[in-house]
Amino acid sequence: MFITETTLRVRYVETDQMGYAHHSNYIVYYEYGRVEAMRNLGMSYREMEESGVMMPVIDSASKYIKPAFYDDEITIKITVPELPTVRMRFEYRLFVNNQLIHEGHTTLVFVNKSTGRPMRAPQQMLDLLQPYYA
Amino acid sequence: MFITETTLRVRYVETDQMGYAHHSNYIVYYEYGRVEAMRNLGMSYREMEESGVMMPVIDSASKYIKPAFYDDEITIKITVPELPTVRMRFEYRLFVNNQLIHEGHTTLVFVNKSTGRPMRAPQQMLDLLQPYYA
Amino acid sequence: MFITETTLRVRYVETDQMGYAHHSNYIVYYEYGRVEAMRNLGMSYREMEESGVMMPVIDSASKYIKPAFYDDEITIKITVPELPTVRMRFEYRLFVNNQLIHEGHTTLVFVNKSTGRPMRAPQQMLDLLQPYYA
Amino acid sequence: MFITETTLRVRYVETDQMGYAHHSNYIVYYEYGRVEAMRNLGMSYREMEESGVMMPVIDSASKYIKPAFYDDEITIKITVPELPTVRMRFEYRLFVNNQLIHEGHTTLVFVNKSTGRPMRAPQQMLDLLQPYYA
Repeated sequence: MFITETTLRVRYVETDQMGYAHHSNYIVYYEYGRVEAMRNLGMSYREMEESGVMMPVIDSASKYIKPAFYDDEITIKITVPELPTVRMRFEYRLFVNNQLIHEGHTTLVFVNKSTGRPMRAPQQMLDLLQPYYA
Repeated sequence: MFITETTLRVRYVETDQMGYAHHSNYIVYYEYGRVEAMRNLGMSYREMEESGVMMPVIDSASKYIKPAFYDDEITIKITVPELPTVRMRFEYRLFVNNQLIHEGHTTLVFVNKSTGRPMRAPQQMLDLLQPYYA
Repeated sequence: MFITETTLRVRYVETDQMGYAHHSNYIVYYEYGRVEAMRNLGMSYREMEESGVMMPVIDSASKYIKPAFYDDEITIKITVPELPTVRMRFEYRLFVNNQLIHEGHTTLVFVNKSTGRPMRAPQQMLDLLQPYYA
Repeated sequence: MFITETTLRVRYVETDQMGYAHHSNYIVYYEYGRVEAMRNLGMSYREMEESGVMMPVIDSASKYIKPAFYDDEITIKITVPELPTVRMRFEYRLFVNNQLIHEGHTTLVFVNKSTGRPMRAPQQMLDLLQPYYA
């Protein structure tokens, strides 16, 4: 499986009056993680979108285990559990100081930007991912 | 069951370069809907938090059916499927022009702000909800 | 002069760990106010953009007088001090319970979406505004 | 003068339907830049706030010269033009590919968290900054 990780820091703007990173930020952290995961894989999401393929999210789920706080460094571990078809699933586990604080997953679909219709994952992506599922 | 609804408009800042309301906004729309649902019930979330009870989110799930666009008026239908205990579940269905565009749910937990420990739903809330579950 | 007002409530997600509406939200409140101001004038920003005219912001300034808090109802008073040319200036004064908490202004420029070049304000907007500057 | 720099990337969530980084993000980029500037100086904003000193923003101004786009790497150059007193001014210049795209500044005030009253800059910060203004 393709597994990778990246880190980010909780921004002040992301805190709320409970003193937590507001729960709405995690889905933004997932997106940040996905983009960096694809960069680590050798494929830029920006270039993919410029080449006419976009990836809207069609479902997501989240489990908030412990709060994160301002300036915490969060490590996001991202797993792509299987080769994408028309859809691509990403799983996320977030850690602060090696403690699991959050789990989630999202499903995205490949869409042809000019027709607006679903399509199979670009061949370039499949070629890059293939070795991880041999 | 307690069922209520409220409306909001998609803000420009919430759009993304696909031209959609970015998927991260839905969980903010849920929060907006919950707060207005509680106001409709006769209970202000602000007052509840000022009285020492906070309600962090512990899980959420979302299904993105159709995109919403800038300036769309979204109707959020909120259902509380059962009387809260230590936890409270909210279910959301979002409509634009009577078309279902999104479904989701969240679970929140009641927490005593001074001890940081979970607690049962405030009696005032139970009293207000009780008639809907008779 | 064209002067109008609208209201909004501070959302939980907009608070920060100081317990304030985070200062980055005011520029979003301005945008919300502008859109509603234009709607009050009889011109939808959405339709204007769909007709090929967009209005990026080119400068802004803000003075944060008092904090706003979660669930506060903010009244935004918007003034358009002069008829727009290629540029349009909006001035904002924000009130909570009739107390001035914030002042700001922004300048926007009319841009032809297909050419990317600045252009004069659409005639429809000038016609709607003209009576306020007679 | 104390001058430092840091970088960040425009996130997808920060884009809008014009395809630009929405103008409301710049004030968040300033905050990100300030926090990293203080870290580079040897002082964590988090620790300062934990020690009882907070720094609300009291004014800001921005000039949007060119748009930034999704995934652009922005370099933020931060200048502290003079030793802070009760107030501290930060100036920002943002670059993409060495091209100036944005300028701004903010003034923050030191506030004693327990009394809510303005106070002079903490001695530790003055000691760290002093050498840059000799």
